[in-house]
Amino acid sequence: MAEHTIKQFDLELDDLKSRVLLMGGIVEQQMRQAMQGLYEADQNLLTHVEQGDSRLDDAEVQLDTVCNQIIAKRQPTAIDLRIVIGVQKTGLELEKAGNKAVKIARAARVLHDKHPFFTPSVELRHLAEDALDMLRKSLDAFARSDSLAAADVLQADDMVDAEYRSITRQLITFMMEDPRTISVSLEIMNMAKAIERVADHARAVAENVIYISAGMNVRHISVDQVRSHLVNQEKAGH
Amino acid sequence: MAEHTIKQFDLELDDLKSRVLLMGGIVEQQMRQAMQGLYEADQNLLTHVEQGDSRLDDAEVQLDTVCNQIIAKRQPTAIDLRIVIGVQKTGLELEKAGNKAVKIARAARVLHDKHPFFTPSVELRHLAEDALDMLRKSLDAFARSDSLAAADVLQADDMVDAEYRSITRQLITFMMEDPRTISVSLEIMNMAKAIERVADHARAVAENVIYISAGMNVRHISVDQVRSHLVNQEKAGH
Repeated sequence: MAEHTIKQFDLELDDLKSRVLLMGGIVEQQMRQAMQGLYEADQNLLTHVEQGDSRLDDAEVQLDTVCNQIIAKRQPTAIDLRIVIGVQKTGLELEKAGNKAVKIARAARVLHDKHPFFTPSVELRHLAEDALDMLRKSLDAFARSDSLAAADVLQADDMVDAEYRSITRQLITFMMEDPRTISVSLEIMNMAKAIERVADHARAVAENVIYISAGMNVRHISVDQVRSHLVNQEKAGH
Repeated sequence: MAEHTIKQFDLELDDLKSRVLLMGGIVEQQMRQAMQGLYEADQNLLTHVEQGDSRLDDAEVQLDTVCNQIIAKRQPTAIDLRIVIGVQKTGLELEKAGNKAVKIARAARVLHDKHPFFTPSVELRHLAEDALDMLRKSLDAFARSDSLAAADVLQADDMVDAEYRSITRQLITFMMEDPRTISVSLEIMNMAKAIERVADHARAVAENVIYISAGMNVRHISVDQVRSHLVNQEKAGH
């Protein structure tokens, strides 16, 4: 490729990354506003989150199209190809994470409608904070192409899964002890599930970071295996 | 490309499609066995399903690697590129659908452990039949690159979603009327959710078929819009 073509291509790859980070920023905001709407019983904010999802849908379709155009036009190989494919997959994960923010907002609205004095538990707040933290860290790792930081996100996901199971068990106990809490408990369960799935999408973003920078598919191996692979690769000077 | 290179490439694309159909066959089998294990309280069959998931994990990792190699080596464009990218995405959806079959088997095992006289409702059987039907039709549409048949699958998904919501509402009513059913109802709810998500993955497979054969991203538009697009494309001789 001529030098100006290479520079042009670099600009295109930078543009792809910016698009992902922009989408990530919207998802973070949607999640934070959904949780704030829940904590403060702010119906306007919850409606705002529900209406804001189309921005992510549009951004994902555009990103997908641009990626396909770049592959067709530039025929990238090796790391460049991994960037484009990794970006495409990451866009899809972020769009799906955004869908979960809408689900949280919807469940929050139902909760406040049916149970005017509802206050979310400390455990649910923790779960949401941890999922948001994973999302932020996976986007940081993406921005810096830092696969070891991405491996930390995989580990965090195991903790979030454990927190989620603990919340579910507690809710089942509540329901059994006092059947009048069934309706509210099920809504909280839906919300906890949506939060846990935001964490899953953050994990998938982190997996894509490792795929892009280290060329590894880490979907079915343990965090320890991932880390030792990455450290060995670094030692070998890759 | 030289003629023998083109032929070789066609063989590679055929191999990709066979891999997808093979994975699809495993998912169908896993789903059918999970449901049969549930109906017949067959713990061995349920354990068999839980242990069978690694085949899909391995197949997905291999498919993903082969796709990346083909893109790097052949630098495909237009429809060929769409086939490779679409196949890669489809493999991921099938692997995730397989995870849901395991979830169903696990929930079935818990149900029969805790409730020896448990019999699944007609509604749950219907839901599972409809999800399996969608899966089969999406794989057929994939095999024949038939985007109009794929559009039918999108429509079927809306029906499955409605069935799922109806089952959930019914279970909530049961739990409220008789709190002793809380534990069993929640397991059934988990199972219904997993079935509903198998249908979602079948829908995603169908979306990929349309992307491959018609070059359209249809994730955020209605079935009617999809159909009229496809019919217009056909009229225009694409």
